[in-house]
Amino acid sequence: MRISELAQRSGVPIATIKYYLRERLLLEGELTSATQASYDDSHLDRLRLIRALVGPAGLSIAQVRAVLDQVDHPPESVHDLLGVGAEAITKKAPVGASHERVHELMRAWGWRVDEKDCDTHAVLEEALQGLDAAGFPLPLGALEDYRQHMEAIAEVEVAGVPTDSAEAAVRYVVLGTVLVEPLLLALRRMAQQEASARRFDPIS
Amino acid sequence: MRISELAQRSGVPIATIKYYLRERLLLEGELTSATQASYDDSHLDRLRLIRALVGPAGLSIAQVRAVLDQVDHPPESVHDLLGVGAEAITKKAPVGASHERVHELMRAWGWRVDEKDCDTHAVLEEALQGLDAAGFPLPLGALEDYRQHMEAIAEVEVAGVPTDSAEAAVRYVVLGTVLVEPLLLALRRMAQQEASARRFDPIS
Repeated sequence: MRISELAQRSGVPIATIKYYLRERLLLEGELTSATQASYDDSHLDRLRLIRALVGPAGLSIAQVRAVLDQVDHPPESVHDLLGVGAEAITKKAPVGASHERVHELMRAWGWRVDEKDCDTHAVLEEALQGLDAAGFPLPLGALEDYRQHMEAIAEVEVAGVPTDSAEAAVRYVVLGTVLVEPLLLALRRMAQQEASARRFDPIS
Repeated sequence: MRISELAQRSGVPIATIKYYLRERLLLEGELTSATQASYDDSHLDRLRLIRALVGPAGLSIAQVRAVLDQVDHPPESVHDLLGVGAEAITKKAPVGASHERVHELMRAWGWRVDEKDCDTHAVLEEALQGLDAAGFPLPLGALEDYRQHMEAIAEVEVAGVPTDSAEAAVRYVVLGTVLVEPLLLALRRMAQQEASARRFDPIS
């Protein structure tokens, strides 16, 4: 397809596509004349991944380039490939944040402790510290309850990862994580309102 | 207790307590001499609520005052009281954001549609729009799956609301919402990593 059709199908303006071409985030199409190139579905996939990374995930062009480098030279396992997407959107924990308590919890849950994922572990540690600092201990069993629900959710999500292309897999992880987070939190607040109404306000 | 003990037990510096007293967020203690006042557990509860509101929830002093006004003149039902806490921490949706689709979903779920809670509904609408805009439709059944898990979580959370004092109830709602959100999201990401490792990387 020509660049105009690529723009139409991807929803990305031609000027932006040309910018990505100059920045070498997107590979040149096959030249069909001195001034025209032809693009295919691989370009469309790549554009969609770039848009996911710069849009919802809010990555810089340099960060996008780092993710795309990994997509182009994919690690051996799908698991490591998904890690590339997850890592790109995980805020870095404060240097040296100790989180041995999180590793201990994971072992108790039968989860494997992978040092590559310590950024995520440190985010949980931060959340636990926030509860400690506020003098708001979780009720007994609450952490286990939360863990089981998130495990069930993640199981279904990971089962749905497309494995036909590295672009599609990384895009799924990035968008599925970033865009679904506000959805989950909004549903929880609405469900709390509903549960509160049923419990405390049954007549209205 | 004296103000020094109040400071020690609450972890709030004396200077900050005096500021809250001047701002009338905290009631004066009972005068025991010309220069000394005595404080009791009600002051401790109030201080803990204020700290929860200005700290994790990030409210301004004016917003804290609005919440405390409601706590001091509590609405008739516990449900409305919990709404005070929820409302205080809900970001306001863009004016006029239409979210009829969310109300339709709620009706389909058998949830009551309370116009007072439309700020929360608009947050879900925003999340759905983000998915639409990214061309990332939720897999069939995913929204229903998320809804059921959040409903189960909210059920347990609301069952644990302390009903012995208005302060304690609002503090529970505010902290339980604000502080548990990052915990849930961190657990989901870790559960995704675990599910991905089990599915795609079983040998390592």
